[in-house]
Amino acid sequence: MTNIQFRKAVAADLPAIVAMLADDPLGAGREDASLPLAQGYVDAFAAIDADPNQLLAVAVDGGAVIGTLQITFLAGLSRKGAWRGQIEAVRVADGRRSDGIGRKMFEWAIGQCKARGCGLVQFTTDKGRADAHRFYEGLGFTASHIGYKKSLQTRTPAATGV
Amino acid sequence: MTNIQFRKAVAADLPAIVAMLADDPLGAGREDASLPLAQGYVDAFAAIDADPNQLLAVAVDGGAVIGTLQITFLAGLSRKGAWRGQIEAVRVADGRRSDGIGRKMFEWAIGQCKARGCGLVQFTTDKGRADAHRFYEGLGFTASHIGYKKSLQTRTPAATGV
Repeated sequence: MTNIQFRKAVAADLPAIVAMLADDPLGAGREDASLPLAQGYVDAFAAIDADPNQLLAVAVDGGAVIGTLQITFLAGLSRKGAWRGQIEAVRVADGRRSDGIGRKMFEWAIGQCKARGCGLVQFTTDKGRADAHRFYEGLGFTASHIGYKKSLQTRTPAATGV
Repeated sequence: MTNIQFRKAVAADLPAIVAMLADDPLGAGREDASLPLAQGYVDAFAAIDADPNQLLAVAVDGGAVIGTLQITFLAGLSRKGAWRGQIEAVRVADGRRSDGIGRKMFEWAIGQCKARGCGLVQFTTDKGRADAHRFYEGLGFTASHIGYKKSLQTRTPAATGV
């Protein structure tokens, strides 16, 4: 636990990151960690990597990737033009959970938001995740909002028949 | 209601947008619509306007700005690299509320997200807002998440004494 380092993710980290996204009760049904990785992951990584307001990060211990999270820095007019840091896709590798790493990752992410001058840090968590309300409150977060989502049909099904 | 148009906001719209943000039960305590606008708003507008993944929009009726919303297009690895559209800061001008404009704005925003190939649209709403759960469900959204926020101290108080 003492040697954990954080850094911006590089392309070579992508299989380890996707494996962590897939190794999750909710992710198992919607991710695909098989190699070579689906092009969607590769394209998304390129878009994130090229965007100065995105920071995909990994936690590394002795060369092994043991955690990941993504921070998006959001400009907005609300709150007198305050920047927000938005945290998404926080995962810790199997075998390293319940080891204080999640807390360390959130603390690091909050520090990155402060360093960028954000006035607010925000994230949403699926109601289906049993974990963590006390954990988040202990980090200073308030469960003040309801998060709504709507899936969009991005591919039309292939026509059958005629 | 038949002549409402949507367009990307321009700098000249900023006073009207900030006035709508301030004319709100929650916004009243944290915004300042006095002119000239605080530099924070001007800087935030410039950052939003320069970012191809941000779309600050206004609804216009006969030349008057009657609504605003912001969409951020977010690249992420989750869901096989699906893009997300995130809607924030939706406001309708006083005197035009309960006129179907909010629905029209959300529908337009969802259309923008589809046009950009997003697989998901998301937003959070403060639990203190009494409105709208049925309204959002009617638009196809599910209240599946809890939204956590944490304010950050961005300015250190001036030293007193020494």
